[in-house]
Amino acid sequence: MEQQTAYSLKQSIIFSHKFAQLSKALWKSVEKDWQTWIKPFNLNINEHHILWITYHLDGASISDIAKFGVMHVSTAFNFSKKLEERGLLTFSKREHDKRNTYVDLTEQGRELFLETLEAYKPSTYSVYGGALPIKDLYGKFPEFSELLSIVRHVYGPDFIDMFETALTRLEDGFIEEDGKLKAVDSETKSTV
Amino acid sequence: MEQQTAYSLKQSIIFSHKFAQLSKALWKSVEKDWQTWIKPFNLNINEHHILWITYHLDGASISDIAKFGVMHVSTAFNFSKKLEERGLLTFSKREHDKRNTYVDLTEQGRELFLETLEAYKPSTYSVYGGALPIKDLYGKFPEFSELLSIVRHVYGPDFIDMFETALTRLEDGFIEEDGKLKAVDSETKSTV
Repeated sequence: MEQQTAYSLKQSIIFSHKFAQLSKALWKSVEKDWQTWIKPFNLNINEHHILWITYHLDGASISDIAKFGVMHVSTAFNFSKKLEERGLLTFSKREHDKRNTYVDLTEQGRELFLETLEAYKPSTYSVYGGALPIKDLYGKFPEFSELLSIVRHVYGPDFIDMFETALTRLEDGFIEEDGKLKAVDSETKSTV
Repeated sequence: MEQQTAYSLKQSIIFSHKFAQLSKALWKSVEKDWQTWIKPFNLNINEHHILWITYHLDGASISDIAKFGVMHVSTAFNFSKKLEERGLLTFSKREHDKRNTYVDLTEQGRELFLETLEAYKPSTYSVYGGALPIKDLYGKFPEFSELLSIVRHVYGPDFIDMFETALTRLEDGFIEEDGKLKAVDSETKSTV
């Protein structure tokens, strides 16, 4: 037992350093490509992430956005205000939860968000390109179950629930038409 | 084949969104804990990362630091200048590579870096805590081979080589004494 714990400090700093270096490298790559993707729409990452979360939750509180968008509450509020000024969001209170401020997409906000998805090109994402060899090897993209487990421990189970809600909505709520992603209108099952 | 490619756009946006959300959440957690760890030494993450890379490479060019520290070259240069002003680094040119500016740790810089490692406490790293259940399950920390493969594709093999150099130096160059990480002086094999 002595041997095992004796190295646990070194093991843990090696793990933490490895994780810090990997997560920094991967996030910086995603950040660069995400910015390039949404630049034509005059959005920054936080603004696009707010539209994304609000779309998937059918309206969200500022604290939901801060939590699921991994932003400070003031960042979530300030960028939501900017989106409101552009007519993309509306602010409101909810009867059941007067303490919190809620935001909803306007029709214009919803259209802009769907346009960003239509404009998405996989080849512009370096991490996507980096994952293709794994996909070719195993026939599907990596699941990252270890990362999901760590995120669950750090951010809590409801972070993962929202995360999976968003992926399910993407899976069920969209189809591919002429090489573009189109939202399926749930009532009429026609694309909008 | 039609079916397989028909869903590739949706599959790829689901993968990219999943990866973006995970890498943002993980990096933001690491960033917060890294800042808390080095605050007592009046260092920010970029400065500590510069000391870290310079230590592991026994001196590094500004472009090495920008590359392995995943920073813009101007960020690498400006923060190295600040460390120089504090007497922690020296700037120099190398005979074999006149185009590049190199930095080396001063004795004071080396001591400060080693002090930060001594002050490291695993419990202060949320992602470390989040990984412990995986370690308990498998008896060792996750390897993240899929992430390493993606990083190799995005940043190139020498990024990974430097990454592994740093981990090996941590493994071989340090021992644990009274619950602290101490550098082993390679000549005398005594701790410094």
